[in-house]
Amino acid sequence: MNEPVFWLAPLASIFALYFAWRFFREMRTQDEGTETMREIGAHVRKGAMAYLRQQYKIMLVVFALVAGLFSYLAYGLGVQNPWLPVTFIFGGFFSALAGYFGMQTATLASTRTTAAARTSLAGALNVAFRSGAVMGLVVVGLGLGNLAFWFVLVDLFTAGDPGDGAYLVLVTTTVLTFGMGASMQALFARVGGGIYTKAADVGADLVGKVEAGIPEDDPRNPAVIADNVGDNVGDVAGMGADLFESYCGSILAASALGAAAFAAEPAMQMKAIAAPMAIAGLGILLSVLGVFLVKTREGAGQKELLGALSKGINTSAALIVVASAAVLWLLGIENVWGVWGAVVSGLVTGLVIGRSTEYSTSPSFKPTRSIAAAAESGAATTIIAGIGVGMLSTVIPVLAVATGTTLAYLFASGFDPTQMTQGLYGIAIAAVGMLSTLGITLASDAYGPIADNAGGNAEMSGLGPEVRERTDALDSLGNTTAATGKGFAIGSAALTALALIASYIEVIRIEMIKAGTTMLDLGHGFSVATADASLLDFMAYYEVTLLNPAVLVALFLGAMVAFTFSGLTVQAVGRAAQLMVEEVRRQFRENPGILKGTSEPDYERCVAISTVGAQREMAIPSLIAIAAPIVVGLLFGVAGVIGLLAGGLATGFVLAVFLSNAGGAWDNAKKHIEAGNHGGKGSPAHRASVIGDTIGDPFKDTSGPSLNILIKLMSIVAIVMAGVTLSYTLI
Amino acid sequence: MNEPVFWLAPLASIFALYFAWRFFREMRTQDEGTETMREIGAHVRKGAMAYLRQQYKIMLVVFALVAGLFSYLAYGLGVQNPWLPVTFIFGGFFSALAGYFGMQTATLASTRTTAAARTSLAGALNVAFRSGAVMGLVVVGLGLGNLAFWFVLVDLFTAGDPGDGAYLVLVTTTVLTFGMGASMQALFARVGGGIYTKAADVGADLVGKVEAGIPEDDPRNPAVIADNVGDNVGDVAGMGADLFESYCGSILAASALGAAAFAAEPAMQMKAIAAPMAIAGLGILLSVLGVFLVKTREGAGQKELLGALSKGINTSAALIVVASAAVLWLLGIENVWGVWGAVVSGLVTGLVIGRSTEYSTSPSFKPTRSIAAAAESGAATTIIAGIGVGMLSTVIPVLAVATGTTLAYLFASGFDPTQMTQGLYGIAIAAVGMLSTLGITLASDAYGPIADNAGGNAEMSGLGPEVRERTDALDSLGNTTAATGKGFAIGSAALTALALIASYIEVIRIEMIKAGTTMLDLGHGFSVATADASLLDFMAYYEVTLLNPAVLVALFLGAMVAFTFSGLTVQAVGRAAQLMVEEVRRQFRENPGILKGTSEPDYERCVAISTVGAQREMAIPSLIAIAAPIVVGLLFGVAGVIGLLAGGLATGFVLAVFLSNAGGAWDNAKKHIEAGNHGGKGSPAHRASVIGDTIGDPFKDTSGPSLNILIKLMSIVAIVMAGVTLSYTLI
Repeated sequence: MNEPVFWLAPLASIFALYFAWRFFREMRTQDEGTETMREIGAHVRKGAMAYLRQQYKIMLVVFALVAGLFSYLAYGLGVQNPWLPVTFIFGGFFSALAGYFGMQTATLASTRTTAAARTSLAGALNVAFRSGAVMGLVVVGLGLGNLAFWFVLVDLFTAGDPGDGAYLVLVTTTVLTFGMGASMQALFARVGGGIYTKAADVGADLVGKVEAGIPEDDPRNPAVIADNVGDNVGDVAGMGADLFESYCGSILAASALGAAAFAAEPAMQMKAIAAPMAIAGLGILLSVLGVFLVKTREGAGQKELLGALSKGINTSAALIVVASAAVLWLLGIENVWGVWGAVVSGLVTGLVIGRSTEYSTSPSFKPTRSIAAAAESGAATTIIAGIGVGMLSTVIPVLAVATGTTLAYLFASGFDPTQMTQGLYGIAIAAVGMLSTLGITLASDAYGPIADNAGGNAEMSGLGPEVRERTDALDSLGNTTAATGKGFAIGSAALTALALIASYIEVIRIEMIKAGTTMLDLGHGFSVATADASLLDFMAYYEVTLLNPAVLVALFLGAMVAFTFSGLTVQAVGRAAQLMVEEVRRQFRENPGILKGTSEPDYERCVAISTVGAQREMAIPSLIAIAAPIVVGLLFGVAGVIGLLAGGLATGFVLAVFLSNAGGAWDNAKKHIEAGNHGGKGSPAHRASVIGDTIGDPFKDTSGPSLNILIKLMSIVAIVMAGVTLSYTLI
Repeated sequence: MNEPVFWLAPLASIFALYFAWRFFREMRTQDEGTETMREIGAHVRKGAMAYLRQQYKIMLVVFALVAGLFSYLAYGLGVQNPWLPVTFIFGGFFSALAGYFGMQTATLASTRTTAAARTSLAGALNVAFRSGAVMGLVVVGLGLGNLAFWFVLVDLFTAGDPGDGAYLVLVTTTVLTFGMGASMQALFARVGGGIYTKAADVGADLVGKVEAGIPEDDPRNPAVIADNVGDNVGDVAGMGADLFESYCGSILAASALGAAAFAAEPAMQMKAIAAPMAIAGLGILLSVLGVFLVKTREGAGQKELLGALSKGINTSAALIVVASAAVLWLLGIENVWGVWGAVVSGLVTGLVIGRSTEYSTSPSFKPTRSIAAAAESGAATTIIAGIGVGMLSTVIPVLAVATGTTLAYLFASGFDPTQMTQGLYGIAIAAVGMLSTLGITLASDAYGPIADNAGGNAEMSGLGPEVRERTDALDSLGNTTAATGKGFAIGSAALTALALIASYIEVIRIEMIKAGTTMLDLGHGFSVATADASLLDFMAYYEVTLLNPAVLVALFLGAMVAFTFSGLTVQAVGRAAQLMVEEVRRQFRENPGILKGTSEPDYERCVAISTVGAQREMAIPSLIAIAAPIVVGLLFGVAGVIGLLAGGLATGFVLAVFLSNAGGAWDNAKKHIEAGNHGGKGSPAHRASVIGDTIGDPFKDTSGPSLNILIKLMSIVAIVMAGVTLSYTLI
């Protein structure tokens, strides 16, 4: 820790947590509104906490089992990093803690947002946005703080000579195992949450809106609370855990690759490790600054509000470009401008993906409008148009990632083809750059469900239409920023997964050194010490070439896993929603007072059904995601594992963009029609667009985002299972 | 040609063409039925020929342009094989010729099938099936005959020492260029044909069935002839050209890899080249035998007919297993049983994919039934269920291809990890094995549209319901065998593309030798003559490893191209169908006599609209498929090209299976409901299932099969552009 700049990370993390606490306290002091409003808020909070309790209960069991297995592998068989059982539990715990804080804040804030919306839009924005910032700052604060903590701790307890190049590689690859717990928790939050939210949503709509003919968010609908809980479960806790994982994963991968890239120059190693931490730390400070910039005068209109929001986000992004140049220069890292170029490449890639998401899914542009127009000829043409739009929407994001990674690689390698590891370090740094201002981008994402819930509360509490209008304005404002947020989520998942795949080989190196496989030797007749082997040496040794059939077969398997995972999550929503439909129908049938408004429906049962359904349905897809890299590793070895990860990443990324954008475009095509186009509400085109929206729901909120988790989880599983793969390969 | 077994190929090809001619003559002597039947048949034939004329006209222009470009590259710049301009034109010409014969036969046969169906089912089967066999035999006859011819010719005109190992590598890689023309023609036939058939189908249904309320195949529908033409254009000409390409491509790749694998043993080289040709020749003889086995007694029932059909197909397949062992043993090829194992692996892979297609899409099994059940809750759940079924249906085909290629590789390499090229030769041989009995499998595919058209003819000619019942029975029989046929088409496309990718490096080798790049030298410090370089040497030299960012980026691009291509073809059908809808509406509006049955609609205009629409809409997707490998090659070089091909293949294969099976399952779920389940025809479930079927149409008949072309075309473009890639790489 002889790099003072490193300490920026823990300090910034404390800073983040302090402001998160301040914003939380500030929110608690706000007016909670009427008795009814409070009651409804309590229902939602109770449901959300019930969901979390259930999820944490199952997680406890799963984590205990997996930690036990890891312990056996580590201490019994000795084929596993001894730190893993501990870092695994901590990674999961802190991600879960961030989710808990975020959900608490969001559910407490929505009532207060409704209350504020009774008087002004600007006030409501303030409550909602700063509460969203709690989630953003808790995620980055707990994430970065932990990484810094583990880095110091592992460094302290690792035997070896800190002056030796291999020492820091060992330390950073050990800390990398922290990602496993975060990834596993993200799986529960994102996949389980995604199934929960859509089961509740589809179930509530199908019986309430379609069969019983009552409006959205009507308190007579037994699934209405589950639906509101779902927004928090999916968009707050799920999104938060997803990005917690990306955030930690990208910093961890950058550290490991930085240590590896400069293994021959120990003086430079610590700088390369400190750089991503320092950039992340700076990003936190600038995020807090950005949050404070989001303010507007009393009585501001929608356009002005959007301006205020953009001002906060854009200022943070612009300043990080300048500030990261300064900190890298201060740090005196080799090839300062190359590394800085990588940071900027990552940031720009994120922005481009965000804008392209907006283009593909906003009713202001051609793609979504073409779907709305197709709705005039019926449901079939609506679906076909949406599928076409979704598939074509993959072009820009893929080109952005391709260009961003190529540039980051070239910049960081100084255009020197022999500096492959430096280049890969650049890709990881690009991911860190993209996520550096996560504190504020996540805030602008997490405030959406708060506003959405506030609207539900206004509806259920029977407040005047002007309140609902204000919360709707906030909600639709949130949709614009959410498009950018979603772009960042999938883009950062891709870059993080790429960086994790690149660090995989460093973990393999450590395992080989531990196992005493010190020399490489093969057909080419060269022989080199494992510690000195270059990436190309490894690739030659393990035959990780595309003409090795193990690699080709694994590529196919990777592509298949992405499709299978999506198919299973799509079907899971269908099945869980079916249970919800039956429960709502049962309540209406057995208690006719509910629809008359004379007796209260049993909200808890619906919450319980969604909760249990989500946990049960996520079992098989999760198992596949975890088992795939282990099984392929046992069958085909290192080359097969890398093939699987690459195939899963390429197909998974493109499939995720397709699913998310098709779903988003259908949703907004419906809204466009509801705004009075193509016949407006109740027209045949509207009916067709509702079908498109229903199909798009699991696409955009379950299967698409779940793929973010799949591609990262498979990489991190491969990393922690590297020792097992090396010890027990069959073919 | 000192291997007598080689001559089996040209002989068998003449044998195939002779029997094709015999079956054609036999069909011509059959009764053509009444005046009306003849007239309708003439309409369809005229439409089909109008389509072919238009397609060939455009092809002539495109082929002239591309051949000109190839000539410039070859003779002007010297970066291209000088044979290419010639083989390119011949490949295209013979594929087109096969399509022409097939279409002529199919359109002439359908009226005669109707005529035969007036008296018996068995007679109708005989006419339809043997006419389908004309297509099958013409494809294999022209394909294999041409390859043998070019092989002899190129051998004759190639300078060099036939005793030298490099000589036959040069000859086989030159003949490989024959695949480019076949591939380009397949693009027109499959993509253009796919758009044509669905534009006509959807257009005819939307206005005729839905708006005007007239039944399917009603002669008052102006698009009815276009619809019937479409069946021939898509399922006869499109499928034929697709498989012509796979058939030639797999044999060509096997020859090239065989020559490369035994470059050190010139005595074994010719045997390795003769083996795929001989197996294909044997397959032709056994296919003809199989066709003769398909006969049944007068008055046989449906089950008996299916038995007769299966008997023919299964006997051919079983006998090829035995016969190929004999011929390989006779040939005295090294590792006889290993190569034979590869043949069998390929055959079994094809069968497994076929059966899994049947499982996923037949109403007798759970997946399709679950879609039918979901239709009870409306269109949205029908679509979601179908998407889920389609995504999960990718598991078995991917596992089959993965297992098949792994086994073929291991068998052919004799489980010796240093024999990589032998192993890849095994993968190509597996593709040859899968397609060896194409003569009869294609027959059982091509007779479906003949029966389908016969049904249309019966309807339009006002024949009694018993005739339609018989043709429907034939049609539904065809659907069962078509599932297997589709499995073979996609499975063989995957294996062929794999084999082509593997042969790419041999083409690179030749180009390097020509360019004088004789030595390899890199970081590993080894140096080897290009002629003696192993696959691993090449991979190391070009850094075709998965951690090379050029490869990773290209993988993403490959996955994206597959999605973009599908998105474009899906949208193309939508646009072309829209034009058809407008034309049919216009005719109904301007000529009220049509619906009253007093005046004849203008069939030709509808045919022309579909024809022109198909040709226009295929331009952009085709351009992308052709440009992608060239552009990526120019940007990222050899490593990038291989990454693109691998990414496109893995994602394209899985996406194709998903699209085809989802479409097939929706189609059959509708039929299942129409058979009286879930409320039967006219029920809400039926209406929902019709929406699913309409969405599935472009999935299963346009985008899915077009992906077969994409994955092969990109590989062959890469192969013929190898010289350009090597001469002009930017990065």
